[in-house]
Amino acid sequence: MEEHQSKPVIAIVGAGLIGSGWAVVFARAGHPVRVFDPSEGVRARVLSWANVSLDEMTETGLVEDPKSILERITVLDALESAMEGAVYVQESVFETVEAKAAVSRSIDALLGDGVIVGSSSSGIPSSRFTAECKNRDRFIIAHPVNPPHLIPVVELVPASWTAEGVVNFVADLMNEVGQKPVRLTQEIDGFVMNRLQGVMLNEAWALYEDGIASIADLDVAISHGLGPRWAFMGPFETIDLNAPGGIEDYAYRLRDLFTGMVREPRGWSDEVIRKATDERRTILDAADLAARRAWRDAMLGRLAAFKKSQELQD
Amino acid sequence: MEEHQSKPVIAIVGAGLIGSGWAVVFARAGHPVRVFDPSEGVRARVLSWANVSLDEMTETGLVEDPKSILERITVLDALESAMEGAVYVQESVFETVEAKAAVSRSIDALLGDGVIVGSSSSGIPSSRFTAECKNRDRFIIAHPVNPPHLIPVVELVPASWTAEGVVNFVADLMNEVGQKPVRLTQEIDGFVMNRLQGVMLNEAWALYEDGIASIADLDVAISHGLGPRWAFMGPFETIDLNAPGGIEDYAYRLRDLFTGMVREPRGWSDEVIRKATDERRTILDAADLAARRAWRDAMLGRLAAFKKSQELQD
Repeated sequence: MEEHQSKPVIAIVGAGLIGSGWAVVFARAGHPVRVFDPSEGVRARVLSWANVSLDEMTETGLVEDPKSILERITVLDALESAMEGAVYVQESVFETVEAKAAVSRSIDALLGDGVIVGSSSSGIPSSRFTAECKNRDRFIIAHPVNPPHLIPVVELVPASWTAEGVVNFVADLMNEVGQKPVRLTQEIDGFVMNRLQGVMLNEAWALYEDGIASIADLDVAISHGLGPRWAFMGPFETIDLNAPGGIEDYAYRLRDLFTGMVREPRGWSDEVIRKATDERRTILDAADLAARRAWRDAMLGRLAAFKKSQELQD
Repeated sequence: MEEHQSKPVIAIVGAGLIGSGWAVVFARAGHPVRVFDPSEGVRARVLSWANVSLDEMTETGLVEDPKSILERITVLDALESAMEGAVYVQESVFETVEAKAAVSRSIDALLGDGVIVGSSSSGIPSSRFTAECKNRDRFIIAHPVNPPHLIPVVELVPASWTAEGVVNFVADLMNEVGQKPVRLTQEIDGFVMNRLQGVMLNEAWALYEDGIASIADLDVAISHGLGPRWAFMGPFETIDLNAPGGIEDYAYRLRDLFTGMVREPRGWSDEVIRKATDERRTILDAADLAARRAWRDAMLGRLAAFKKSQELQD
C-alpha cells in the first residue's frame, strides 16, 4: 500500500452486490480496499458498479469526492493478494454453509496476526462454518442490510468462541465507517433484524389470510403510518415518547393490549402466497420489478441524504 | 356557511391533540371545519395550537397558505353548532367506552340525513359504543396515527352494522384530504396498525429480556436498518422487491425461516420493564422527554415534507 495512507487496509472477499456495497462503505471512509472474487465476470463489474453508485451518492449529497473514493478500491484476482496488508476481512460469498465454510477455511489459512474476519451472513450463525478454523476466535458475523452503502447499520453476532476484543474491534471499525453496530450477545435464529422483520411479516400474512385487509392496505399501514417514525426512531424510543411518563408508563398502560394480541403460530400457506402474489402483480407487473428496485434504491439514497442533512446518522 | 365555499363542512368533536390535528387536516384540504369541545380550556387552545403547527408546516413546505387554512377553522361552544351543516363528524374524545358511548349518543341525536361519524378510537371497536345509536349504520372507526396532520394515514374499521356506503364515503373523503385509508373488513383487537406494531414490540421486549441486545441497539436495528425503507414501502412491497422472482419467490425461500422463529407468548414482566426503563433513562433523562417529543414531531414534519417533495404521498 502507499505509505501516505493513514487508514488501515480492508479486504473484501466475495464481490456481488453486498461485497461491492461494502467496498464503497470502507473506501468512502478513507480506507484502502482490496477486493477479491473468484469469478472474473463478477470482478469485472465491481468498479463500474461502484462508479455508478458513487455518482448517484454525489448527486444526493451523500459523498463529495467520488473519484478519490473509487481510486481507493483495487480489484484483485487472488484471495492472498486481497488480504495482503489488510487488518479486517469482510466476507460476502453465497449464503450456504458449504460456501461459507470453504471460504472461511481459505481465509483462515492466510490470516495474519490479529487480522479479523466479519461475515455478511444474514442467517447462518458463524458457529456453523468456522468451527474448524484455527483462528476461529477472530471470526464474527457482521451482517449488513442491503444495500450496505445506503443503509447505515450492521449486526454483530459472535459465536461462543469469538473473542470479546474482536467484537469491540469490529464495533469500533463499523462506527468509524458510519455503519452503526447492533451488538448481539449470542447467536439466535434470524439474529435481531430478521426476527423483528419476521414477526411483522408473520402478522401481516395472517391478517391477509384472514381477509382483514388487502396487501396494498397492509403496506399503506406501514409506509404511511408506522414507517415514517421508524426511519429515525426505534420501537423503544417510540413508546418512551408515547406516554406522559415514558416507557414504564406506556408499558403498564398497554402491555395487556399488546401481549393479548399474540396469535397461534401460523404458516404462510401455498394458497395465501398465491393469492398475495396475484394481488401484488395487479399492483406491479413482474416486468416492472427491476425498475421498482432501482426506484427503491434511489429513494433509500435520497432518504439517507435527508437523514444526513438532519444530522440523523448517529 | 358562506355560500361560496365549495367543499363540504366537517365537524370535529373533542379537540385535544388528535382533534386539533384533524381540524388542520380537513382545513388544509379546503374544508370549513367546525370544532366543539366541552372544555373551555381545551377550546381556547385549538386555534393557537393550529397557528403554531401551520407555521411549522409552512417552514418545511408542507402548506403554502397557513392564514387561509386557519380561517377555515371555527371553534364553537355547543355540539349542535359544530354539527350544523356538516356532512361528516370526526369524534376524538377521551378513549373509554363510557366517554365514547356518551358522545356517540349525543351526536346520534343530532345527526342529520346522511351525515356520517368517524371515531378516532385507537383500540375500542365501535360496536362497543354505538350499539344503542339509532343511526349506528353511519358510525365507523377512523383511527389516525398521532399526530394526524403529519402522519398521512387512517384506519377504517366498520362494525358489523356499518353500511358499506359509509366505508366508501369515508375512504373517499380521507383520500381527498390526503389521509391514505387502510380499510379493514371487520373489527379485530388492535386493528391493523397496533397489531403490526405490537408483534414487533413483543419480540423486542423478549429479545431484551433474554439479554440478546440492549435497548439502544434494538432501536438502532430499526432506526438505522429496517425503518428507512418502511418510511416509503410496506412489508409486502419490501419482500416483493427482495427476491429475483418477487413475493412468491421470496415467500417460498424464506417462509420456513420466518415461521420457524415464532416464540411462545411472553408477557412484559415488571422486572424487564424496570430494567428497560433504567436503560432508557440513561439515554434520555425524564426531564428531556418533552423536548424529545417536540424533536420527533419536527422530524415527522420534515420527513413528511421530504416525502411530499419526492411525490411519495400516494
